[in-house]
Amino acid sequence: MTESGKPILYSYFRSSCSWRVRIALALKSIDYETVPVNLIKDGGQQLAIIEYLEETRPTPRLLPPDPKKKVLVRMISDLIASGIQPVQNLSVLKQVGQENQLTWAQKAITSGFHALEQILQSTAGKYCVGDEVSMADLCLVPQVANAERFKVDLTPYPTISRINKSLLALEAFQVSHPCRQPDTPPELRA
Amino acid sequence: MTESGKPILYSYFRSSCSWRVRIALALKSIDYETVPVNLIKDGGQQLAIIEYLEETRPTPRLLPPDPKKKVLVRMISDLIASGIQPVQNLSVLKQVGQENQLTWAQKAITSGFHALEQILQSTAGKYCVGDEVSMADLCLVPQVANAERFKVDLTPYPTISRINKSLLALEAFQVSHPCRQPDTPPELRA
Repeated sequence: MTESGKPILYSYFRSSCSWRVRIALALKSIDYETVPVNLIKDGGQQLAIIEYLEETRPTPRLLPPDPKKKVLVRMISDLIASGIQPVQNLSVLKQVGQENQLTWAQKAITSGFHALEQILQSTAGKYCVGDEVSMADLCLVPQVANAERFKVDLTPYPTISRINKSLLALEAFQVSHPCRQPDTPPELRA
Repeated sequence: MTESGKPILYSYFRSSCSWRVRIALALKSIDYETVPVNLIKDGGQQLAIIEYLEETRPTPRLLPPDPKKKVLVRMISDLIASGIQPVQNLSVLKQVGQENQLTWAQKAITSGFHALEQILQSTAGKYCVGDEVSMADLCLVPQVANAERFKVDLTPYPTISRINKSLLALEAFQVSHPCRQPDTPPELRA
């Protein structure tokens, strides 16, 4: 908390974990201050922050009230935040060695996206689960951005691509975008 | 569901993801049938199943009612299920190549346990968060078992070791243990 009572987000412009939380904050219209940190602990821990926001600021909801739909939202979120992102994150890539990084990241993402595309084909409406934005969508957009960064061909994933495009048209996904953060370097701004 | 209405768990005796769910089922006294599957999709998706069980069978609770404690439980669960487990899981190890597997897994686990030990020192009572068994404990025990399998020295993690020991004394953690599953090979039974 700042002195004025605003929450502080320790954020790294490029981190998909930070980005997920920024989208949640924007959707829930929570005003916050950013403290940029250059080194970020990777992993899916920010899902816990999103669940906390959901409990303390329930409107608009990021989890559907129905337990069966909710489990779909959490399953998709976990598939991305635990199944794909940790295997292609910075600290793992460092361990893999520079010459293997691109191949490693592409393999992690494509095998995850293959599973994700199949799931979304049965759960998606306008967004990942039905027509309401949910936690799953907060996870999807940063992961697709990572895929693009690692030059993954997205043609085999038409549902992922379509949902991603619809989401990027929303204000909350734009203001939270890595290219518009206080610590975004000038050459990456848009 | 089986014809008799029992839920079916598609389970692999050794998978830490399956084990987490088995502990939840045992704690909530939910009778189920096991269908062993030899190949398991890794990742943290089973946390979504645990959240679903929590919502549909709230007693005994696996998440504390207080949002601040709940965020700690989810943070610890995510640190393990998204931050450690996916980096040392079977499919990643296959990609790393046989000669590097042990070093890779040990590095992933020790760096995660270093962070976890520090967090637990401030959150733990008898178990990971206070004195009630929570989702975090369901994640801890299978991960410590993985650490032991990869011959990680646990001396630097006294809090992790102490909590793990207390948990393994509980019935739910024993009946769900990989050494007591229908698909456990005879040489690994205990």
